[in-house]
Amino acid sequence: MSLINENFLKLSDNYLFAEIARRVSEYKLSKPESKLVRLGIGDVTRALPQVCVEAMHKAVDEMGDAASFRGYGPEQGYDFLRKAIIANDFAPRGVELDADEVFISDGAKSDCGNIGDILSPYCRVAVTDPVYPVYIDSNMMSGRELVLLRADEKAAFTPALPETRPDVIYLCYPNNPTGIALNRDQLKLWVDYARENGSIIIFDAAYEAFIQEDGIPHSIYEIAGAKEVAIEIRSFSKTAGFTGVRAGCTIVPKAIRLRSDDGRTISLNALWNRRQCTKFNGTSYISQRAAEAIYSPEGKSQTKAIIAYYMRNASLMRERLQKLGLQVYGGVNAPYLWVKCPASMGSWEFFDLLLNRLEIVTTPGAGFGSAGEGFIRITAFGNYEDCVEAMDRLSDYLK
Amino acid sequence: MSLINENFLKLSDNYLFAEIARRVSEYKLSKPESKLVRLGIGDVTRALPQVCVEAMHKAVDEMGDAASFRGYGPEQGYDFLRKAIIANDFAPRGVELDADEVFISDGAKSDCGNIGDILSPYCRVAVTDPVYPVYIDSNMMSGRELVLLRADEKAAFTPALPETRPDVIYLCYPNNPTGIALNRDQLKLWVDYARENGSIIIFDAAYEAFIQEDGIPHSIYEIAGAKEVAIEIRSFSKTAGFTGVRAGCTIVPKAIRLRSDDGRTISLNALWNRRQCTKFNGTSYISQRAAEAIYSPEGKSQTKAIIAYYMRNASLMRERLQKLGLQVYGGVNAPYLWVKCPASMGSWEFFDLLLNRLEIVTTPGAGFGSAGEGFIRITAFGNYEDCVEAMDRLSDYLK
Repeated sequence: MSLINENFLKLSDNYLFAEIARRVSEYKLSKPESKLVRLGIGDVTRALPQVCVEAMHKAVDEMGDAASFRGYGPEQGYDFLRKAIIANDFAPRGVELDADEVFISDGAKSDCGNIGDILSPYCRVAVTDPVYPVYIDSNMMSGRELVLLRADEKAAFTPALPETRPDVIYLCYPNNPTGIALNRDQLKLWVDYARENGSIIIFDAAYEAFIQEDGIPHSIYEIAGAKEVAIEIRSFSKTAGFTGVRAGCTIVPKAIRLRSDDGRTISLNALWNRRQCTKFNGTSYISQRAAEAIYSPEGKSQTKAIIAYYMRNASLMRERLQKLGLQVYGGVNAPYLWVKCPASMGSWEFFDLLLNRLEIVTTPGAGFGSAGEGFIRITAFGNYEDCVEAMDRLSDYLK
Repeated sequence: MSLINENFLKLSDNYLFAEIARRVSEYKLSKPESKLVRLGIGDVTRALPQVCVEAMHKAVDEMGDAASFRGYGPEQGYDFLRKAIIANDFAPRGVELDADEVFISDGAKSDCGNIGDILSPYCRVAVTDPVYPVYIDSNMMSGRELVLLRADEKAAFTPALPETRPDVIYLCYPNNPTGIALNRDQLKLWVDYARENGSIIIFDAAYEAFIQEDGIPHSIYEIAGAKEVAIEIRSFSKTAGFTGVRAGCTIVPKAIRLRSDDGRTISLNALWNRRQCTKFNGTSYISQRAAEAIYSPEGKSQTKAIIAYYMRNASLMRERLQKLGLQVYGGVNAPYLWVKCPASMGSWEFFDLLLNRLEIVTTPGAGFGSAGEGFIRITAFGNYEDCVEAMDRLSDYLK
């Protein structure tokens, strides 16, 4: 018997962003003077909000003085942050949560990957296609059976309810990569389905702060009954530029009660708490103070300004791409534009054309699953000037 | 079929430190004016080294300016830190490592828990008794078979080589909880055993910075051949007071090559890299800059002073406890004292006596496994004055 987790051997070798990096660096080697505009990876470019900078300076000073030094914090996160999250992100939307239903993480990706620890390896897991690859890879590592829910252009990027019941359903709205958001009725369909079928939903709300339109739920718990079936994973990465600071949170409501094989009623909240107490030692105190600062009045206005900056990029690019006759989705309630490749080009073909002719880096849709073929993803996280420059190059080329 | 990971239901309900906290708060309720001296949980009390404070202020300012802002870092950690670790912790001990064998973590506990992701759930895992509970609980969560290696007083707290071959062996030296360190020959026995038997060693070196004596390896890689069989988990938590800052590292040498079921040769380094890229998004940039600062000349002298402070506590308590006729182990190369309960008392009995009569909080040895019965663990991480106070109370009581 082998000592390794053999499931790893079934993972595809090529990680999407590694392949993009390879092609980009190959191009740069051939043209060292090139001025690439990077609209590929979903990383932010604006500075941290000043309230966060100030809060971190203060926290650092506390740590430098034995009288105010903080060692191990609670594995679940500090109450000051858990309560700020509830008071600002949930209570105003009519969602009541207890502090012990909120778990502070070192970022959404960790919890997206680790949440499977508390679920059976025999669960059948449904994910959309196209999809954020972490849902697929982390479940393959545990040997779980995957079901793809097609969310292509014909389906308006909104998957139909599954024909055979999955145990676990990953939903990400506003969606990465398509930028599509679900309205209340669309999201209610999934909550009702999970309730009727005894499925669990893992709801990735990493982009909720980018929602601009009314009627789009920011949290799945805005839908009645969701607390009994849904875990929600949230992030400060895109909301406030925390990609390098590392903080997020995961909501595991105590109302999720599952049946064990011997007929007991088990709380998923208790299992996740046990998982975190055993395999995690809390998020940096300094990062938690930075996250708390987002919820101050200044913090709210500063993060709002950053989001407005990115969404101006999104609008600009959306408008200009449409003027060029391209079919564009997303970019209204999400920082991602999902652009149909012209002239029936394939994803990688259009990606290569944009890279080699126009020196614009994007993400080929096929990298997010076969239903992403024929599309590219453009992110709005760049500098405004770079977005304008990219659109100018494209206009010149296509005219 | 249940949706949950049923292995969680086999975990013991009572987490040691939760039970201690319960008894302490019960006592405080009954005697609100009590002046407890806490020598229980292994958390540090000194302030962060000033070099770390300065490095973090600088990093925070970088994050507050778009020109120097850093978003997602490498999942494996920044090269500046990986290289500093190699140059300072390994190269001077004759251990050569490549930067891509060093993975920066958000702390040793995360990696101790997560390392199992790359190993087969069918591995037989050996841990010592007494033991740091995370090794047991994290493996039970994956359903692995556990073998206990008795490391009690009769065995000089050093387990004998196992009679039946385990696939994976957890070793922690200097040891938590017993404070025992292994010399070169003792550690070589294990490396040789693993090499001869095709086992993997997971070596927890969280307390290496406390080693005072010559001839005690700080890294398992000081033993010839260890790179082919051992993963080493390291921490800045105790070395430099990072319990609230969250940074550590894990070494997965590329020389560890295992056979897959279909006969391929698999690199554990590649599997761990894939695991981290999928389920982790890197350690806070600010924490990584703080860790880097430890290796500057000022950083070295400041951390040395902090360690000397704690080790003075350890010596003081060791001496005074011995003068009182108590049998004491550890405290020479480790911040932990492993104290035999007097008069054949049980662990919890002595714990309760110290709490209720002397208002001293310790950790009952039985909480670390049945072979810890009859001992308590005392940590040297408190204030010097508190350590003196605790010893005075004990002297008054026992005289």
